[in-house]
Formats: sequence, C-alpha cells, structure tokens
Amino acid sequence: MPMKWISVLLLLQLSSHFSPGSCGKVLVWPTEYSHWINMKTILDALVQRGHEVTVLTSSASILVDPNKPSAIQFEIFPTSLTKDDFEDVFMQLVSKWTYMPKDTFWTYFSLMQDIFWEYTDCIQTLCKDVVLNKKLMTKLQESRFDVVLADPAGPCGELLAELLKIPFVYSLRFSFGYTIEKYSGGLPFPPSYVPIVLSELSDQMTFMERVKNMMYVLYFDFWFQAFSEKWDQLYSEALGRPTTLFELMRKADIWFIRTYWDFQFPRPLLPHFQFVGGLHCKPAKPLPKEMEDFVQSSGENGIVVFSLGSMVTNMTEERANVIASALAQVPQKVIWRYDGKKPDTLGPNTRLYKWIPQNDLLGHPKTKAFITHGGANGIYEAIYHGIPMVGIPMFADQPDNIVRMKTKGAAIRLDFNTISSTDLLNALKTVINDPSYKENAMKLSRIHHDQPMKPLDRAVFWIEFVMRHKGAKHLRPASYDLTWFQYHSLDVIGFLLACVATATFVITKCCLFCYQKFAKPGKKKKRE
Amino acid sequence: MPMKWISVLLLLQLSSHFSPGSCGKVLVWPTEYSHWINMKTILDALVQRGHEVTVLTSSASILVDPNKPSAIQFEIFPTSLTKDDFEDVFMQLVSKWTYMPKDTFWTYFSLMQDIFWEYTDCIQTLCKDVVLNKKLMTKLQESRFDVVLADPAGPCGELLAELLKIPFVYSLRFSFGYTIEKYSGGLPFPPSYVPIVLSELSDQMTFMERVKNMMYVLYFDFWFQAFSEKWDQLYSEALGRPTTLFELMRKADIWFIRTYWDFQFPRPLLPHFQFVGGLHCKPAKPLPKEMEDFVQSSGENGIVVFSLGSMVTNMTEERANVIASALAQVPQKVIWRYDGKKPDTLGPNTRLYKWIPQNDLLGHPKTKAFITHGGANGIYEAIYHGIPMVGIPMFADQPDNIVRMKTKGAAIRLDFNTISSTDLLNALKTVINDPSYKENAMKLSRIHHDQPMKPLDRAVFWIEFVMRHKGAKHLRPASYDLTWFQYHSLDVIGFLLACVATATFVITKCCLFCYQKFAKPGKKKKRE
Repeated sequence: MPMKWISVLLLLQLSSHFSPGSCGKVLVWPTEYSHWINMKTILDALVQRGHEVTVLTSSASILVDPNKPSAIQFEIFPTSLTKDDFEDVFMQLVSKWTYMPKDTFWTYFSLMQDIFWEYTDCIQTLCKDVVLNKKLMTKLQESRFDVVLADPAGPCGELLAELLKIPFVYSLRFSFGYTIEKYSGGLPFPPSYVPIVLSELSDQMTFMERVKNMMYVLYFDFWFQAFSEKWDQLYSEALGRPTTLFELMRKADIWFIRTYWDFQFPRPLLPHFQFVGGLHCKPAKPLPKEMEDFVQSSGENGIVVFSLGSMVTNMTEERANVIASALAQVPQKVIWRYDGKKPDTLGPNTRLYKWIPQNDLLGHPKTKAFITHGGANGIYEAIYHGIPMVGIPMFADQPDNIVRMKTKGAAIRLDFNTISSTDLLNALKTVINDPSYKENAMKLSRIHHDQPMKPLDRAVFWIEFVMRHKGAKHLRPASYDLTWFQYHSLDVIGFLLACVATATFVITKCCLFCYQKFAKPGKKKKRE
Repeated sequence: MPMKWISVLLLLQLSSHFSPGSCGKVLVWPTEYSHWINMKTILDALVQRGHEVTVLTSSASILVDPNKPSAIQFEIFPTSLTKDDFEDVFMQLVSKWTYMPKDTFWTYFSLMQDIFWEYTDCIQTLCKDVVLNKKLMTKLQESRFDVVLADPAGPCGELLAELLKIPFVYSLRFSFGYTIEKYSGGLPFPPSYVPIVLSELSDQMTFMERVKNMMYVLYFDFWFQAFSEKWDQLYSEALGRPTTLFELMRKADIWFIRTYWDFQFPRPLLPHFQFVGGLHCKPAKPLPKEMEDFVQSSGENGIVVFSLGSMVTNMTEERANVIASALAQVPQKVIWRYDGKKPDTLGPNTRLYKWIPQNDLLGHPKTKAFITHGGANGIYEAIYHGIPMVGIPMFADQPDNIVRMKTKGAAIRLDFNTISSTDLLNALKTVINDPSYKENAMKLSRIHHDQPMKPLDRAVFWIEFVMRHKGAKHLRPASYDLTWFQYHSLDVIGFLLACVATATFVITKCCLFCYQKFAKPGKKKKRE
C-alpha cells in the first residue's frame, strides 16, 4: 500500500519534534458512540507518539470507559445526570428519528428539532458541570495543556480552550445543515451543487432538487440561530463578557472533517480544513476461531456482514423476521450483529452476534457484501476493504452517506420501515452478482489508499503543528472579521448600484435639460 | 527539517508504483522565464523517478534550451516566429508594464490589455504551429503519453491533451483577475476578503478597498470573456466541433497553484487544487570561491542580495545611480545582479554580477536582506531561508506578492519609478535593524518547512496519481455542469421569490375578498 511507508517514516521524522522530554499535553472533550470510537483512534496515536492525553468525561459517560486498560488518562467530573439519563436521551433520539414519519418537511423537522433540543440540554448540563466546577477548572489550568481536541457536535470544547487560553482543534463529521462549518468555519457551501446534509440529495441535482436544497439551507440557517442562542448565555456567563457560540467556535485552529473525496462529493474547502475520513481504518486482523470456522464453511459463496451500528442492536420483531427471512435465502453465510430476540425466520446460514469485529470481517477475503445502517465509520471500513454495500439507513447522516455510496455505484439503498424480504434479497443478490458494484467499491478503495498521506498521520501532524506553533493563525480566513452582508458584498453591490442609479439620474436630467434647451425651441418654431 | 525524511521516503515508497519497466510518459507545454524555471524543477524530479519527460518547445524558445545537458527530452517544432520576435514581445511587455503610468484605472488597464493581446497572439501562433503540424501530431499520438503537464498562462496544453485523449495537469501562478481559476477551475473567490490579483490589496480591506476589488472583479470578468473568444475559434477548428477555451480548461485533473499559506492569504480552494508554492526551493550550496571571499569580507555586518529577476537585468542610468548611491551607504556588502552600464555612484561595498546563485546566497548565514522585484520564485527562496525583504515590484503579480510580504511584516515596499536613495537606504536599514522583520520572515520560513509533505513531492505525487488512475475524476466538482445563473442559484432564488409573490398576491386577494364580503356589509349597515 502506498501510504504505509510514509506513515511509518512520518512517525519517525516527527518524533524528533516531540522527544519524551518535550511531548505535548492534549485535553479532549469527546462525544459518545461512533464519534468517540473515531476520536479514540487519534488519541491512541497521540499517546503512542509520547503525548499526554487527558479525556474530560462525566460520570454519566456511556462509551468513554476509564476502567478499560489504556494509556489515555481520564478526568472524570461529577454531573447531576446519571448514565441511564444519558443513555435514555441517545436511545430516544435514535428510536424517534428512525421511526418518525418523513412525509412532510415541517413535521419531520419539528420532531427532529425537539429531539435535538433534548440532546443539547443534556450536553449543556455537562458543560455547566465542568466550567462551573472551580476545583476542576483550577486543576485543568494548572495542568498547562497545549491544545484542546473537541468534537463540536457536543459544544463546550471551545469554551474550555478559551478559559484555559490554549488553541483548539475540531474533529467533526457534520453539523445540521453544515451550519457550524459555514458560520463558524467560514466554509462556502454553494447550494447549487453542494447537497446539504440531511437533504439526501446528490451533487447532480435537478431544478426542483436545487429548490429543495435551498429550502433546507434556509431552514437550517434559522434553526442554527436558535441553537446558537441556547449556548450564548452560558458562554457569556462563563467568560464574564458578552460572547456567542459562533465567536468561540471561529477560534478553532484546525478542523478535521471525517470524510474524504472517496466518500464526499467535491466541494469548496479552506486551508484550515483537513479531510481525514477513514482515519480509524486498518488492515484486518485474524478472526476468533469460531467465527473463522463459520466464515470458512461458506466455501465459494463467501459471507455477508450485517450491522446497524453501535447504537442500533435491536429492532421490532416484525422487522427482524422480514430481514432474517431474506438472509435465509442467500447462498452466502451471514454474520449479523444483533442483540434482540432471535427471529423465528432465522436461517441456518445466519449467525447472530452481540458484537462483531467489523473491520476484520470486512477485510476478510471471503466477504462479499456489507449490509449497513450507513454510519460513516462503517462505510469507511467498507471503502477501505472495497466491499459493496446494501444500505438500510436509520437516522442522522446515514441516509446521506448511503446516497453518496449509491451515486458512486457501490451501494443499493433500502428503507428500514418499508423494506420487504424480497427487496432485501434482490438488493443483496445484485450487489454480490453484478460486478459493477464490486468494481466501484474497489475504485473507491484505490482512491482511499492512494493519498499523499494516511488520514490518521495527517490528523496527528496538524494537532502537533498546533502544539508546535501555538495555533495555526496563518490559516485563519479574513472572512471571520466580516459581517454577513459584508461577506456577501451586499454593501458594495448596494453602493455600486446607487452609483449607477445616480449616474443614470444625472445623465437623464442632463438629456432632459438639453432637450428642453435645444429641442423645444425647434418645436416652438414649428408651431410658430 | 521535518520534511526531509518524508520526501526521501516518499520517493522510495512511490517508486514501487513506477519501476523502470512501468514508468510514465509526460508531455510538457511550458511557458518562458520564471514559469519555466519553476516547472523544470518538477520535470527534473519526474526524470529522477524514472519517467520519460518530453518538452514540446518551439525553435523560437528563449529559456527552454534543448542543448543544455539534461535527461529531459525536447521535441522542437518549427515556428514562423524567431527567437528575437519572441524575446522582443517579452521585453516590451516588461518595459511597458514597468514604466506605464498607473494613475488612472482605465489607461492602466487598456495599456495592459494591449500588452497582453500581443503576448496572446504570439502564444497562439505557437499553438497553431503545433496542432496544425500533422507530422508532429502523428508523432505525439504514437508516443502514447500518459499525461500533459501545462502552464495555462500560455494556453494550448489543454488542446493538446484533448487531441491526444489523455488527462492533463496544470501548474499556474495566477491568471489575470483569477479568471481562469474561477471560470475553468470552479474556485470561489469571494471579493469581500479575497483580493483580486493585480489589485495590490490585502485580505483586510476597508469599504472603499472592497469596492475597488469588486470593480477589478467585474473588469476582469469582461476582459476574460474577450480573451477566451480569441481562442475559441482555433480550438473549435482544431477539434472539428464547436468548443471553448473554458470548456477544455475545465478538464484539468489537477491544478498546482504555485503559492502556499506562508505567502498567500487563506482563501477557499477545491479538492483538485494543490498549493505547491516554493517547490523549487532547496538548501543552499557553497558559493563560488570569489563570491564566498567577498561575502566573508563583510564581517559582522553581513551582506545584502539584490536582484530584479530573470527578465529585468538592466534599467535607466538615472535609476541605477539612485539605487547604487543608496547601496553605497549601508555597512553591508552588496551583491547585485545587474547587466547594465556600471553606475557612477557604485560604492566599493557593491559588486555587480550578470548572474547570481540566488538561492545559495539567500541561504548563506551572512545574508541580512534581499532587495527583490517580488517574483514568486525569489520571494519563496527568501521565505525558505527566512530573509527579510525590500520589495521593488516591477510588473505582473510582483506588486501583489510584495503586498503579501509587507502585510505579513517581512518586507518593505518601494516604488521603482519614484524611489529616492534615502527611501532605499531607510528601507534597507529598517529591515536589517528592526528585529521584527527577521522574526516575521523566520515565522514564514517555519510555516513553509512545517508542511505534512514537501511541495515538490506533493506535485510529483499528484502527477503520478493522474497517470496511475488515468485522471482524477473523483475530484471534479459538479459545478462544472452548471450555467453561471444556476451556479449562483439565481433560477432557484427567482422561483422562490415568484412563489412568495404569488402567495402574497393570493393571500391579499383572499383578504380583500373577505373584507368586501364581510366588512363592507357592516359599513353598509352603519350607513343604513
């Protein structure tokens, strides 16, 4: 693989900057589930390179487990929330979003907004529990961190960095309507060819799709205003001066976006945005013996891997039976990550597992297809190993992710709520037997592997860059200092139009004057 | 230096893709002077990595010298132009541009346009001499090149690639008003914070400067339309179907822009744009004995390096005397690249050379300052070695380049036509004695050296990527398929406004109807 050499050597050469004596101190403000899984990859790499990594996590955290053996340090702060409260919020979010009716724009979005407000209240409680905890803040101040690494999907990292007076780096998959990237990062998103996340559109849009995209842009712009206002008061109180969420977010030195051009449609970026999609991907390790035996028993037909991600390990009995009966009809063996009641229609070719080594399975030579909910992490593992997909998106960016894979010819999309056994069976047969799906998946894989630098190394490089240079101010766009109407040159356009109008008025007046002076006497003469 | 390791190792690991048996074939459409100097660095690197590089050059070429010993192959085509014709056009361009009055916008630009049209005619003659030369075209077809590397400052490379049905890569410093990058590359240039090249503005603009910038944008947009039309006919004839310069330029797979964020103000980019400024820079080699002795004789005071670039080695006697008398007054020794009559005021501390090893001098520990015309190549050598500058820009992007260095605190700008000895003396004393200039130059140098990958390696990587994958279509933005009003969503905005207007009209009508139906009888009642 072209990047292996570089990554090893990059680590070697960069270590000269951070010898054990001069290693950096990284403070992390994480978010849960797949976000944490992804960020942990960066943290492990930082620890391996000699940096001190401290994760600030609440006693209610779900996935961030300080008891797991790790070289990462955890600073656990007390919170009024319990683990169950927190888990409930996430599970409700998933369940409501997955099953809610998507027929009408307004109903869908007002429901989604309610869900998101609940989540925001939760994160805000955690944030208050940190910044108003004087003892903790003093400890953090005294620890003299070099940089904060935060996921802006759960704000507070930027406030911590401001309070600790240190630079910070973001790692983000997406914000609703790309509003954070647009208003805080300064990224342009021309709605004519950049489909807004959650719109489920591709970059090739018809006129009515472009109208839909524009409606989404307008909706999210208003929506984000409300989201920001929810935070402004807390931030102003914490800093003792009027400020806004936007203002603090704009201070991010580097933004990691967890996609790349194997996955995302090409769109404008800025120099402080680094696209690091798939940084968690790695070559497959051997499978556990029992699983390997099952995989090998598939013979020439190979296997199908099926997972709906770390948040959805269960479903209604009816849905489970529909899916299981389809899986029972394929000649492949199926490995299904599922934690619910065993479906009655489960075939002998399908085995259920509470947890699966997904990356190792996708990298197994016998794997023919991946049935996925379309989470970015899973899709990247499929891209990495060149596996075609059947996408059954549930919520968040999952439908958009599957749209991308479908557009690139590497996936078929199905709808979880309405799918029949025949639909799933046909989709599986197609992605396995029509060679174009495998070819396209392999093409994406080749693009992914053929980057000038491995995404994880790029992420590590830029975090260390920010530590070395105490920021990356040379990448800060001047647009940050403009108001929205200045940014869009509305004042300049207004001024130029006023000039043209004035000139037209003056010229017209002059012409009228000349006409009255010279043409009218002629007329008079005629009459005379 | 952090990049050394990577670059060596990158070369090692990438060579696995292009072993001698499978090396690529690169066809080059170069432009002259500094553009060629820069491009040759890439070509040398490609040759070193085992690729076959063929430069297509006319018998009238100035700098592209097929007789110089080199592993690069030259395909020389006959042209009706002579070397003198060609050189005359360039020299007139330089002289007119340098000395022309810049007082009024319209005079300046109409003169500049005349100059540029002359240059365009010249390049067009060369282009015709290639594409209408059937024997040459057959030879090129049979050579089965993998990629064309071209500088769009002199069009034709894209036409050659289209005729040979192969992908192509651009290397560009800038186009007038960034029009090529905008209309062919699809790059957004928000005029509110991206100063248009030739406007001599920084990214922090006052309201009137933003008005000026917008005027430049509008001017160049019209201007480029005329420029494009000059080529459309030739391109359509050569292809035997109606086409435009824009259309072909849009097919570029990768665009190298010869700046980076140590030099350029941060601005939006696209995934197929790679900023490779300073790719020609390298550590200093030892100086020739005589020059080293002269440099060493400067003692603690050190030396000043002075060059106005490869195109300006001469000037009027009056200007030369003004400059020489200033140089005579500094305690440093001065090395001046100058090919004219020895000025009367030349001090004993100043030595004239027809040619200087500029990079080796700028990398010499005794060098204190660089007096430069502000060409991008020279500025990058100064950035690479961290040398503060006195900029005396002459033409093209030179004033803009110096504005960038001045804004970043690493240079003082002077005007060639009006400068006095005192001005130059004071400027030199300031950049040498005020430590902030050296500090800022060193800061730029640190940014330049601390990139994830050396610019030259990045350029080589992407050329090889295009050869490996027969293009880089996954980076092509969907905006290429939109008309300008679709791109700016004007049709969508118009449609939505029409919807709002219709809705308002219908609601008003309904209200009026209701008013007439229910309110009027009330009135009537009153009257009754």
